[in-house]
Amino acid sequence: MNLFSMNNESLESFKNDVQKQYNDYKSLGLKLDMSRGKPCAEQLDLSFELLDCLTSKEDFICANSLDCRNYGMLDGIPEAKELFAPMIGVGSDEIIIFGNSSLNAMFWTVQTAYTHGILGSKPWKDCGTVKFLCPVPGYDRHFKVTEFFGIEMINIPMTETGPDMDMVEKLVSEDESVKGIWCVPQYSNPDGISYSDETVKRFAALKPKASDFRIFWDNAYCIHHLVDEPRYILNILEEAKKCGNEDIVYVYGSTSKITFPGAGVAVMGASRKNIDSLKSYLGISIISYDKLNQLRHVKYFGDFNGMLAHMEKHKAVLAPRFNAVIDALEEEIAPLGIGSWVKPDGGYFISFNSLDGCAKRIVELCREAGVVLTDAGATFPYGKDPDGKNIRLAPTYPSLDELKKAMEVFVCSVKLASAEKLLSERTVSC
Amino acid sequence: MNLFSMNNESLESFKNDVQKQYNDYKSLGLKLDMSRGKPCAEQLDLSFELLDCLTSKEDFICANSLDCRNYGMLDGIPEAKELFAPMIGVGSDEIIIFGNSSLNAMFWTVQTAYTHGILGSKPWKDCGTVKFLCPVPGYDRHFKVTEFFGIEMINIPMTETGPDMDMVEKLVSEDESVKGIWCVPQYSNPDGISYSDETVKRFAALKPKASDFRIFWDNAYCIHHLVDEPRYILNILEEAKKCGNEDIVYVYGSTSKITFPGAGVAVMGASRKNIDSLKSYLGISIISYDKLNQLRHVKYFGDFNGMLAHMEKHKAVLAPRFNAVIDALEEEIAPLGIGSWVKPDGGYFISFNSLDGCAKRIVELCREAGVVLTDAGATFPYGKDPDGKNIRLAPTYPSLDELKKAMEVFVCSVKLASAEKLLSERTVSC
Repeated sequence: MNLFSMNNESLESFKNDVQKQYNDYKSLGLKLDMSRGKPCAEQLDLSFELLDCLTSKEDFICANSLDCRNYGMLDGIPEAKELFAPMIGVGSDEIIIFGNSSLNAMFWTVQTAYTHGILGSKPWKDCGTVKFLCPVPGYDRHFKVTEFFGIEMINIPMTETGPDMDMVEKLVSEDESVKGIWCVPQYSNPDGISYSDETVKRFAALKPKASDFRIFWDNAYCIHHLVDEPRYILNILEEAKKCGNEDIVYVYGSTSKITFPGAGVAVMGASRKNIDSLKSYLGISIISYDKLNQLRHVKYFGDFNGMLAHMEKHKAVLAPRFNAVIDALEEEIAPLGIGSWVKPDGGYFISFNSLDGCAKRIVELCREAGVVLTDAGATFPYGKDPDGKNIRLAPTYPSLDELKKAMEVFVCSVKLASAEKLLSERTVSC
Repeated sequence: MNLFSMNNESLESFKNDVQKQYNDYKSLGLKLDMSRGKPCAEQLDLSFELLDCLTSKEDFICANSLDCRNYGMLDGIPEAKELFAPMIGVGSDEIIIFGNSSLNAMFWTVQTAYTHGILGSKPWKDCGTVKFLCPVPGYDRHFKVTEFFGIEMINIPMTETGPDMDMVEKLVSEDESVKGIWCVPQYSNPDGISYSDETVKRFAALKPKASDFRIFWDNAYCIHHLVDEPRYILNILEEAKKCGNEDIVYVYGSTSKITFPGAGVAVMGASRKNIDSLKSYLGISIISYDKLNQLRHVKYFGDFNGMLAHMEKHKAVLAPRFNAVIDALEEEIAPLGIGSWVKPDGGYFISFNSLDGCAKRIVELCREAGVVLTDAGATFPYGKDPDGKNIRLAPTYPSLDELKKAMEVFVCSVKLASAEKLLSERTVSC
């Protein structure tokens, strides 16, 4: 029965039942973590043999005859460029292979624009107000980077087809201080929404007022599918080229959720003009990244098809976890009308929207019962969710049994917080 | 016979002989590289087993029970802190373990000071003129970092005991715009000079006018000895603590020249106050560095003594190379009085000072005969050697046979350039 349809007495009794249930969970002393998009041990085990790929001294010589153990090859080894270029949809001359962190590559790109500008434009530090558009809910670590550099963040609502493009187009074309937008175009973090073809085309065709406006296209989950016949998003760099707009986008990706989060390979793609300019900056800060790890990935996967085959194994581990979350929500929350969500076809998260203003209380209840969730508000710039309703659920890290238990606590907490809210509103209106 | 003592006729004849010799070398079509401080293949082979250290799934769990394959541990795994702390002379709570590049750690530290200041001070970008002291000759990549951020560089002459400390003390204590100094305190790049105890103590006791002045103590060659009983420099952080001055220094090191230049581990040490502040910035830019590579190093070396034992193997490979360079200089150049150098007890370079103004010509002659040296001037800020005499020789990368051949070309080029210079001066003065 929908919670809104209950009379005060039924609602009070519902709340008391849920409170008892909650107290029981609390007494279990659980320690469960659904806070971050961390692969589980079972996933990490999938890539065990990656670590055993360099077994003879001949293995170290890469396609250009250089020794990968030594200095050099600032932008990566040729084989790694070949392997990863199709992953992020760029040519092998449009890519830089970084270290183990695409977040670090993004931070560095923003920092470089801040201190030195983009393709000869004024450094952002000297531009007065600089603004970024932030589709919300979004990824907290993106927002922290822009906040760090004092960049003003503007919320852009997400729709089922991606960010609200009318708003994006208007702000980008009219305001020269708008210098960038954070995007997770495939299986967005946390909504799991993949941008429609129209959305990608409209991004590619943007006519920014600022020549140094860039789309930060964090394609973190580009091949991280949960379904057998996934829909791929359009290739942004290709579309941008069709519009004569190829310098507008920086594309990022990594193997953090393909091999190892701590020891994968991060990459960045862009037009050759962008790449050449960025490389000239990069060479000041480092001589080369870890090419042995690049080589490991090349030898382990062989080619991009090898990566796709490997992702099937991740899917087999993850799909049941996502199903467990969705099942719990559909069974326990849907009938009560106290929350909404989308079942994602890939990625790492499920985005749960509670009744307005309940997110913080739900997260608090869960924490007190031993289930750690991402902080309420974290999916918004400055940690401020205007409706106080979004909670990011990360189902990958716990075991399936733990996850089911955590979801019991979660749905119980949602019920309790919702009943509390409805009752307190009725009291107020009396 | 000293070249200066020759009459014009003898000098002309000397020059003609050397020119013939040079032409013969040139006709050989050599391809030799003494330009960078790169380990040779024989050295890289020494660490082959490092790559085979992670063989069971239990290996991935580190001292704090966390899985090194996953996200987390921003500042490094506990075991790596224990291993590397004694290498750079700090406590295991005074260290951050970075990725594969100490240059990158230095760049990041300067960038952070530039954009966000140090311990609450004004960001350097807002300080107007910012100056760094640069002991010369020095490391070109240091100078490139400060140049990148528009920092004005002031040459500080090196003496046999380290930088001219009278000059350092005066500038640091009188000029608030002096915010840092680049130091390679043990086996300096390129002179191979180790700072005396007095020099280290004077550094530790500096009373900077600027509270955000830092000593960038790049201890790149801290255990890279070429002699059996090396002299260790004093511990700068300990000395600074004695003076109540512990926040004044950032210490850097790496295994780039211990295991692999492309795939080693870089570290930074400082006071806990500095480290805590830097960690809060670091967490914006990355979730964690490659902890599997940290673990490999821990398992491979066991402890710091294991690293010291490993360095003995490097010494066995490198000492004959350094001897070959010194022998060639002593036999061929010393009698002629046309150059000076110091035989280093460790490190990666030999610093050759030609007659004033001859460095560029010598490097050019070598290049034309197929021997690549570091560009003349590279050892000075902005690439400007005021006396035009310093050439950095990097003997590690070529094989011993190649090196001997390269040194034949080098001494021949020195003779030719010196004779050219002396003859042209005599013509002018006629």
